[in-house]
Amino acid sequence: MRVLGIDCGYRITGYGVVDTNGADCLLVRCGTIRSKPSDALALRLRQIHGGIVDVIRELEPDVAAFESLFYSNNVQSALKLGHVRGVSLFAAAEANLPVFEYSPLEVKSAVTGYGRAEKLQVQQMVRALLKLEIAPEPFDASDALAVAICHVHSSRFNRAIAATL
Amino acid sequence: MRVLGIDCGYRITGYGVVDTNGADCLLVRCGTIRSKPSDALALRLRQIHGGIVDVIRELEPDVAAFESLFYSNNVQSALKLGHVRGVSLFAAAEANLPVFEYSPLEVKSAVTGYGRAEKLQVQQMVRALLKLEIAPEPFDASDALAVAICHVHSSRFNRAIAATL
Repeated sequence: MRVLGIDCGYRITGYGVVDTNGADCLLVRCGTIRSKPSDALALRLRQIHGGIVDVIRELEPDVAAFESLFYSNNVQSALKLGHVRGVSLFAAAEANLPVFEYSPLEVKSAVTGYGRAEKLQVQQMVRALLKLEIAPEPFDASDALAVAICHVHSSRFNRAIAATL
Repeated sequence: MRVLGIDCGYRITGYGVVDTNGADCLLVRCGTIRSKPSDALALRLRQIHGGIVDVIRELEPDVAAFESLFYSNNVQSALKLGHVRGVSLFAAAEANLPVFEYSPLEVKSAVTGYGRAEKLQVQQMVRALLKLEIAPEPFDASDALAVAICHVHSSRFNRAIAATL
């Protein structure tokens, strides 16, 4: 199974793709999609959508995983992030990928065992879990890989539960 | 010039298309795009995007106009609305339509002369300005027409200013 994890951001959206045989995870690729700050909102959304479509076309993931919730005291930030999540979720749905969502707590817990872990801890655990020599950068990319790994763990857990029923 | 106005909403997104010769506005069509509440978010966004794409393909507007700001004390509502605005703005950008945004104050002022007008007043003024026998319904559709009319007024105003320079 090939899993695409996406970490949505208005300026930088991270993506991370891993392969799994059900036990181990292997890095396929990670990176970032950037929108041009000087461009109008609609154009920036088109750039972000285009970037995700390219990743999906090239790497052909089987599923897409996103963070489900966003905590913010700032309505304007939430609205902006919502725009990016909108086109990102749409790009996955458009490609007929099953979409899974995990809370930040679930993602951090799955990767570090601690729901309030810092980005640096998440990045280091992603490096260890994927047996990489150097940590994936920037945080947008390592966070996206963490979402993908969370989906792998969650699927494995669900299968294990199903096997005991 | 043919103007598409869009009033984004998570459950119901209104659209309104008007033709203008620079002086009068003529209704082409208005209506709503609904997403299925029982479906997952990504699928609902696909339905909304698909609805807007259909309207653009069929009615071939020259420009798209949106409300620029959303006032809310609720971060979750802002985030949800952001998703819908994201795919809606993207649908317009994807069709290479120039995108214009107007604040709710500008839209209400353009149509009723009063920035804090109620939806019913906006609906009645839209009916009068488009010389319709019955008011366009529901509010989602009349609000979308108001955004389109606001763009027509704004373009006319800008042309008038340019002519005096």
